[in-house]
Amino acid sequence: MTQTQQETKTVITTEQLLKHWQGHRALTRRVIEAFPEKELFTHSIGGMRTCAVLIQELLAIAVPGLRQIALESTEELKEHLDHNNSKAKLLQLWDEATPEINRLWALIPEEKFQQSVVTFGQYEGTVWSSVFYFIDNEIHHRAQAYVYLRSLGIEPPAFWER
Amino acid sequence: MTQTQQETKTVITTEQLLKHWQGHRALTRRVIEAFPEKELFTHSIGGMRTCAVLIQELLAIAVPGLRQIALESTEELKEHLDHNNSKAKLLQLWDEATPEINRLWALIPEEKFQQSVVTFGQYEGTVWSSVFYFIDNEIHHRAQAYVYLRSLGIEPPAFWER
Repeated sequence: MTQTQQETKTVITTEQLLKHWQGHRALTRRVIEAFPEKELFTHSIGGMRTCAVLIQELLAIAVPGLRQIALESTEELKEHLDHNNSKAKLLQLWDEATPEINRLWALIPEEKFQQSVVTFGQYEGTVWSSVFYFIDNEIHHRAQAYVYLRSLGIEPPAFWER
Repeated sequence: MTQTQQETKTVITTEQLLKHWQGHRALTRRVIEAFPEKELFTHSIGGMRTCAVLIQELLAIAVPGLRQIALESTEELKEHLDHNNSKAKLLQLWDEATPEINRLWALIPEEKFQQSVVTFGQYEGTVWSSVFYFIDNEIHHRAQAYVYLRSLGIEPPAFWER
């Protein structure tokens, strides 16, 4: 066995998990960008929510979710954002969340990840499982937006590029 | 701050990561089950792959991917499986992978997760990032199957139930 990195008994560090999430968020940003402005706010399949509404859910979870973990605040899930059906505004909200996620993340000590937390007044779990849920939920909804793009004849950005 | 669990500086343990993945795999199984047999092998949107073809990709990655990490074997990505357009056969292949994933996982010591690996002869990363890719890719493709189900008028299983 070749061992090219330092011996450590950590599956993943907090810094790696943050970078992993922000890599996913950069991809989600490119998916938003790939939509024509009209279809971002109108297109859907099978009665599902539009991409813009799914993105609002992701924004409603990320920073407020981390605030609960980092600051032990109480937050409501507020999925209605003031975007005026503007792609530029939605991207601006996305970009404003990026450094705020980094700032809040730095306030979460590593030993907290195995502790319990209740997010949005009802979702019980450990800190790690809550953060994984935020990321998994983003991958899930973004993949739905991939199908929307394909159904519009638009090639989505490559999944593996972060 | 109330601390209800043991003090530990681990973001996530290997056992938790395995349980997390198997939870996702149990959900993916329910998504396969939710498809009518014909549409599982024929339905698609925007020129994308059918659900059955996506599931074959996931099967081609999970056990062979872990074999490379656990046994340091060399594997090819073999996405063509012998399923005879049978949902029962696809579910059987899924179920056969489940204990094999557990068996191989137990052979991966925790200190290996930060080490480097090349999977399928070309994908370089750490062990943790490779395993995360396997899981993220499953969430991504399963979410596309969710849209297929919705477009067929079928309610998919709840995302948060694992």
